[in-house]
Amino acid sequence: MSAVVNEDAEVKAAHFDELIGTEWISSDPDDARVRLRFRDDLRQPFGLMHGGVLSTLVESVCSAATFAAVSEQGMAAMGQSIEVSFIRPITEGGAEVRAKARHRGRTTWLWQAEVLNDEGKPCAIAKMTIAVRPRPDA
Amino acid sequence: MSAVVNEDAEVKAAHFDELIGTEWISSDPDDARVRLRFRDDLRQPFGLMHGGVLSTLVESVCSAATFAAVSEQGMAAMGQSIEVSFIRPITEGGAEVRAKARHRGRTTWLWQAEVLNDEGKPCAIAKMTIAVRPRPDA
Amino acid sequence: MSAVVNEDAEVKAAHFDELIGTEWISSDPDDARVRLRFRDDLRQPFGLMHGGVLSTLVESVCSAATFAAVSEQGMAAMGQSIEVSFIRPITEGGAEVRAKARHRGRTTWLWQAEVLNDEGKPCAIAKMTIAVRPRPDA
Amino acid sequence: MSAVVNEDAEVKAAHFDELIGTEWISSDPDDARVRLRFRDDLRQPFGLMHGGVLSTLVESVCSAATFAAVSEQGMAAMGQSIEVSFIRPITEGGAEVRAKARHRGRTTWLWQAEVLNDEGKPCAIAKMTIAVRPRPDA
Repeated sequence: MSAVVNEDAEVKAAHFDELIGTEWISSDPDDARVRLRFRDDLRQPFGLMHGGVLSTLVESVCSAATFAAVSEQGMAAMGQSIEVSFIRPITEGGAEVRAKARHRGRTTWLWQAEVLNDEGKPCAIAKMTIAVRPRPDA
Repeated sequence: MSAVVNEDAEVKAAHFDELIGTEWISSDPDDARVRLRFRDDLRQPFGLMHGGVLSTLVESVCSAATFAAVSEQGMAAMGQSIEVSFIRPITEGGAEVRAKARHRGRTTWLWQAEVLNDEGKPCAIAKMTIAVRPRPDA
Repeated sequence: MSAVVNEDAEVKAAHFDELIGTEWISSDPDDARVRLRFRDDLRQPFGLMHGGVLSTLVESVCSAATFAAVSEQGMAAMGQSIEVSFIRPITEGGAEVRAKARHRGRTTWLWQAEVLNDEGKPCAIAKMTIAVRPRPDA
Repeated sequence: MSAVVNEDAEVKAAHFDELIGTEWISSDPDDARVRLRFRDDLRQPFGLMHGGVLSTLVESVCSAATFAAVSEQGMAAMGQSIEVSFIRPITEGGAEVRAKARHRGRTTWLWQAEVLNDEGKPCAIAKMTIAVRPRPDA
């Protein structure tokens, strides 16, 4: 049993959201949120926050919030497609993603999300489809 | 002069592609490529490579290859939108992105890209628009 | 003067929105709207409203509302990209698109839109980028 | 039996592809194609072919070619999402869509497509996801 706990802890410590510093705020399907503080190693070559960081945050919050809602029924959630439009670069402070599930189907959930900077200004908007599938272990 | 070199080195060391381990292979607009080795800290909670890593690779190669082509005219390149469809999870080995510029306009470049695993099987396909704008310093 | 009127009328009579029956409701960038009544010749082979009709409505309202806002500055508006996710088929009644400009830039406008059926239920959500360019004749 | 034929004919005559003039060329998943001749009633207000016509053609060819491949297994095919990037306006002649199924899964097919003008120049590129579901009547 403790092995399982250790294994879980290790997995958590190793995963990508830990690497970039994702802070989990809410997995409410009507207002799911994650946040992240800027760090130098999140920049692209011109010094802006790399768009891939924003795409990662969007995918993380949509996947995690879908999974939180469907896991009790023995289902898993996995990104199927993501579309992000970048509006305003982020150069300091942080980023917050707010996402809302617009469709909660049996096989797919469809999300709209926006990325805001520390002043609450929109920096990107996104649409993401999460596939919902039976869990192999469930 | 050495200050500039140091500054550049520092910027390079700090940026997001260094963090995730992007290897630059080609910035040829007809066959631009980056590659990356799997590491535990690139996983999402179920152990697969996080989709955000793939989105990051796509954005990095499209942005860098556009910039390589337009920088001599004093232009900068910045991600405007990205769309990624995930086909097959990556659980080990690595990922390679191959991208082709389908349109090379005055204000935008439009790219198609695919992500392959180590066996050459498609794991994601993507479309990305890069905005081309005058460089403030040019 | 009457020649201009006639010319305009002819253009209007010939264009695609006339063919499908688009009804123009509002070009307010915060709540732009078009509507359309179902007809048999808008169906796809299974009898549902063809997704292309919905994509057309989204593009029409976003383009027209952008043009309404920028034409006084001598600018034209043209679709650059569209992304539509279909949620619920429409089989009768009608469709209404409601769109909101999330970014109003010098060179691009970025819209979010949703398509509702007659009962107000979401049938599709969309994101559309409109390019804003100088008018040749302005 | 003749009633069925008549019913089919009526459905065909009524549907959206008949209205816009889609010509069916190939439903080969590796090279599916449709074509269309320009007509005045396919224009948008500035005289170009309406982007919605191109989105319609992409959706028609991807849906029809998926259905052709899965119908024998009692499955139906329905558009789930479409993303079109417009490159070059079409003002005369015609449009041809060429599409290739990049993923042929149990629940979704994923297509890449391009729209060419009469000179073979790319006018749009697209990505489309088609949902594959059991047919109610199968």
